[in-house]
Amino acid sequence: MNKISEHYRKSWEPLALNQVTIDDAFWSPRQLNIASVVVPYQWAALNDAIPGAEPSHTIDNFRLAAGEAEGTFYGMVFQDSDLGKWLETVGFLLAQKRDPALEQIADDVIDLLGRAQQPDGYLNTYYTVKEPNARWSNLRDHHELYCAGHLMEAASAYYEATGKQKILDIMSRYADYIATVFGKGPAQKQGYDGHPEIELALVKLYQSTGNDKYLALSKFFVDERGQVPHFFDLEAPERKESGEHHHWSEYDYYQAHLPVREQSTAEGHSVRAVYLYSAMADLAAAYKDTALLQACQALWKDVVSKKMYVTGGIGSSSHGERFTVAYDLPNDRAYTETCAAIGLMFWANRMLQVERKREYADVMELALYNGVLSGISLDGKSYFYVNPLEVWPETANYRQDMESVKVTRQPWFGCACCPPNIARLIASLGHYVYAQNIDKREISVHLYVGSKVALEFAGESVQLTQHTQYPWDGQVDFDLSLEHPTVFTLSLRIPAWCDKAVLSVNGQELDVTIAEDGYVSLEQVWNPGDHISLQLDMAVTILHSHPNLRENAGKVALQRGPVVYCLEEADNGVNLHDIVLSTDAELKVHFDEGLLGGVAVITTSGSRSDVDLNAEAPLYSTKAYDRTPTVITAIPYFAWSNRGAGEMTVWIRQG
Amino acid sequence: MNKISEHYRKSWEPLALNQVTIDDAFWSPRQLNIASVVVPYQWAALNDAIPGAEPSHTIDNFRLAAGEAEGTFYGMVFQDSDLGKWLETVGFLLAQKRDPALEQIADDVIDLLGRAQQPDGYLNTYYTVKEPNARWSNLRDHHELYCAGHLMEAASAYYEATGKQKILDIMSRYADYIATVFGKGPAQKQGYDGHPEIELALVKLYQSTGNDKYLALSKFFVDERGQVPHFFDLEAPERKESGEHHHWSEYDYYQAHLPVREQSTAEGHSVRAVYLYSAMADLAAAYKDTALLQACQALWKDVVSKKMYVTGGIGSSSHGERFTVAYDLPNDRAYTETCAAIGLMFWANRMLQVERKREYADVMELALYNGVLSGISLDGKSYFYVNPLEVWPETANYRQDMESVKVTRQPWFGCACCPPNIARLIASLGHYVYAQNIDKREISVHLYVGSKVALEFAGESVQLTQHTQYPWDGQVDFDLSLEHPTVFTLSLRIPAWCDKAVLSVNGQELDVTIAEDGYVSLEQVWNPGDHISLQLDMAVTILHSHPNLRENAGKVALQRGPVVYCLEEADNGVNLHDIVLSTDAELKVHFDEGLLGGVAVITTSGSRSDVDLNAEAPLYSTKAYDRTPTVITAIPYFAWSNRGAGEMTVWIRQG
Repeated sequence: MNKISEHYRKSWEPLALNQVTIDDAFWSPRQLNIASVVVPYQWAALNDAIPGAEPSHTIDNFRLAAGEAEGTFYGMVFQDSDLGKWLETVGFLLAQKRDPALEQIADDVIDLLGRAQQPDGYLNTYYTVKEPNARWSNLRDHHELYCAGHLMEAASAYYEATGKQKILDIMSRYADYIATVFGKGPAQKQGYDGHPEIELALVKLYQSTGNDKYLALSKFFVDERGQVPHFFDLEAPERKESGEHHHWSEYDYYQAHLPVREQSTAEGHSVRAVYLYSAMADLAAAYKDTALLQACQALWKDVVSKKMYVTGGIGSSSHGERFTVAYDLPNDRAYTETCAAIGLMFWANRMLQVERKREYADVMELALYNGVLSGISLDGKSYFYVNPLEVWPETANYRQDMESVKVTRQPWFGCACCPPNIARLIASLGHYVYAQNIDKREISVHLYVGSKVALEFAGESVQLTQHTQYPWDGQVDFDLSLEHPTVFTLSLRIPAWCDKAVLSVNGQELDVTIAEDGYVSLEQVWNPGDHISLQLDMAVTILHSHPNLRENAGKVALQRGPVVYCLEEADNGVNLHDIVLSTDAELKVHFDEGLLGGVAVITTSGSRSDVDLNAEAPLYSTKAYDRTPTVITAIPYFAWSNRGAGEMTVWIRQG
Repeated sequence: MNKISEHYRKSWEPLALNQVTIDDAFWSPRQLNIASVVVPYQWAALNDAIPGAEPSHTIDNFRLAAGEAEGTFYGMVFQDSDLGKWLETVGFLLAQKRDPALEQIADDVIDLLGRAQQPDGYLNTYYTVKEPNARWSNLRDHHELYCAGHLMEAASAYYEATGKQKILDIMSRYADYIATVFGKGPAQKQGYDGHPEIELALVKLYQSTGNDKYLALSKFFVDERGQVPHFFDLEAPERKESGEHHHWSEYDYYQAHLPVREQSTAEGHSVRAVYLYSAMADLAAAYKDTALLQACQALWKDVVSKKMYVTGGIGSSSHGERFTVAYDLPNDRAYTETCAAIGLMFWANRMLQVERKREYADVMELALYNGVLSGISLDGKSYFYVNPLEVWPETANYRQDMESVKVTRQPWFGCACCPPNIARLIASLGHYVYAQNIDKREISVHLYVGSKVALEFAGESVQLTQHTQYPWDGQVDFDLSLEHPTVFTLSLRIPAWCDKAVLSVNGQELDVTIAEDGYVSLEQVWNPGDHISLQLDMAVTILHSHPNLRENAGKVALQRGPVVYCLEEADNGVNLHDIVLSTDAELKVHFDEGLLGGVAVITTSGSRSDVDLNAEAPLYSTKAYDRTPTVITAIPYFAWSNRGAGEMTVWIRQG
């Protein structure tokens, strides 16, 4: 149902979600969990039906806006977006498996959305209920376009899944109205939202409707950001506020410090940043906008080479939830919001759609298996907003500068952005696995996830089935189901962490030639039943940081495949900082079926101080403590804090 | 002029300041600086005569209280204490050298104090000017008794120096009035101040007046603290506030969580804590109160073995300026307020007065040469409130969780507690050097500072002259000037950092027998002209932290004599965290006359990453950077940040 015109087509388009069926030992249970636990739970939360939980009031707000209830708006100004993310998740789930009961709930809430929509198309419960005469008066702080964006994303997902037009029509009407309010016309607002989101959402609305006006509106918002005079300075006096005192004092918090094409360093609120960069990548592709692409490339480089945690987490300061300066990546005070890692995946996937480069897919995979997945508990019932790389419960529970760090995942948040965001990410995993180049008759495999994909090359249907025990094993098998012999190119990513890849077709080993972009391309006539085997060597790698990264000086991290490891107190006792991994230690891996839902565990050896922690001892001494050999057990970072509160560290001393 | 009755005498009484004349290459210039730069500057500040500085209004507040000016109170509720500390400093300076011009200024301001005093003896400008009917309504937050305490300390110091009774009379009247307000009588308040200070000040007032009622009042305040029901909960409803919401939420912030005799861990605001503990030590000695002494001993142990930085700094959290949990001593987010290190010296000196133990003097010396002295620039014109042990200017200037850290000393503070506190500490250094045991005819030398001391043993006068180049050289010489042969004991502290001490009398080397208390005692008939030579070996020592102290894992600190060293960017370039001191490195020391006012410099060797910091490089890599040998230059910690902003670290990786 993709309505993208050839004119705006990207080099690499992702497949529609209903073309990809995930069937994977690692991911299918997680998707099932989203469907059976998270989505019902979140629906109950949106309806304030969870005893003891912080009220959400989201559905009630829509009822109020529809004139169907009495009372007043309650919640964050961006409360509507919670419904948007939930509905989008539902769309993603339905794309893979229709569910009449769930669909009925969604249809009903879509009807409610329709009734809450104002005659002119406007749809925002905060302003409709609380300040009906103050629409668009505070773009900087009030997330009005942000909420619109999340509902547009929901519309696109639900329409793509069900083919039902209603939500798409509602959001198109809203978008049409927005296009009358914003623009360069004399009576229009030449502004943009404090929180980027509508920009990427309008691209999706375009993709679902084929109406390139939405693409143009997205481009307008992106182009306006950072222009002088600053829009936020113009709108503030209109609501009788000085423009000088910003809530976050600086334009860079909103990525509005420079026109986007002049931005080369990632600044400000990290979720906002990667949402904006995602839209920039979309638009760079759609409009073949080289300057915009170059800005994306420069920003990408700044993030991954100076501002990204080894887990794919970004944003190192809780104050402003933001990027700070290059190489400032404290492990204990990492902010690394789950939403930011998710946004990094959004951006990485879009960069891959412009130019296929292994680096984008590597980072996408890294964020997925680490900084994103750590955000949700193994049972799917609790969440981290903040994902630190090192925790000492004593201070995390005590120091005010650790206030944002939680030692255990929380059931819900007042600012509930992360739980629905992780739900929609997992539900839409199929968007990240493959991409297709129509012109080149080529399919790229970006991620290794057990799945079935159905696509067509000029009318010839191809079905590819991927089998793997990834991320625990590097063996990946593909079976081709074709109607008759077909020419196309199958390109497989060889991750940078993999030192050795073995590839065979129908049992015949091939020379592996990794192209500059990090992919191996097999271009040939494929026959029904062809079998491709890829074996990625998944040795444990020891990672060192750049010498500028002071927090990790003298320390290493363990990674195996895409999975970053950590030490937990549950396995290693207290004082993890005291443990030193031996330089020559053997790194053994075993799969432990019963541990943390089944994970590959790394065991190795090192030393720790030989000390009786209960004995009296001086704080400082000219004598160093003797050291004693110790076994070191590392578990996947994403699985930490599923066994109660305790110390945790990703970076381990080595010597 | 000491009026302490035998009944309340401590084992070890410090000498009066006019008995000790400092004549020392290291300290005399610093005392001169206090007299010639700091005291005039601070007087100008108190009078708002410094262009561009934050207004103080202190003197004007007293004029307002005296009814001699128009306007309103301005400043902190504890603004009066700034005058108290200034006047106390003046007293300390005059005790060593009378200065008629300065004395005239002081006499005039004392007259003003007299005129500002209310008919009933009350003397507090905030309440007199601003809330005359609300005296004693908010002991928890308003520092009313705290201000009284600082003025009492000033009274004692000025009287001891000049013999002038006026200020002592003013403050005695105020104390007499306070004794009518507070007590166990039916119409009295059974409370105490949120900020301990008056407790130790009343002991001084007793020492200067001989009126043991002040000692008893001090004991009352100390005994009441932490009793249930909590006084702060009783007074809050009287001013129509809920007692539940405390500004700092917990009683422990005020050391009021438990009766003081039941306290065994140092909690809360660190300056308040050590001021309280100082009074507790005073009272334990005066009243031979074993339970109080045991509490002091337990608290001491908790501080020095779990909560003290290697510099003698205390208080590891800027939020609440407080102690946190055991072993939580982050170097970059250390709070380590200058006033807290000063307070630790107060306490240590008082512990020494109850029981002579090297540990107390060692910590007192450690704080003096490091955590206290780092608070003031070499030119005496700028100050640190916060004394971190590690600084990376990039984040100190950027991260909100580093907000309290300043990279360079500041000329003055709105909350100007530290500058006058360090001034009075340096001016009163003579109080810390010696102590006298009348009964045992013994003099203890706690600190090695060039000085002359005059004392009497039962009418026999003894003059001891100490010569030393301390802290740069461990050679200390003493000359005795006696009227005739005299029996007494001279006890010299052998610091714990000293591995080898050589002692000789009149050129005759003695066997050094260090007693359990860490002192060498020479008990003999001394003759006029006797000469004692003590040579303390001052090798560089390498300090390791307890394995629980996670911030220092794998790191060492360098100390020589009492001086802790640090690396600065000025000598070692950037990325100090990347430098690794070789385990077997030779530690060379040379005195550099021209550097930082003349300091002993340590040079040694190690390695650092061989990296072009301007080259593009990955943030994480499986390849460790090669390392290249490097020279390491360490300077005294107290002298850091006198050459502009740059990185600094006390703890250095070793391997």
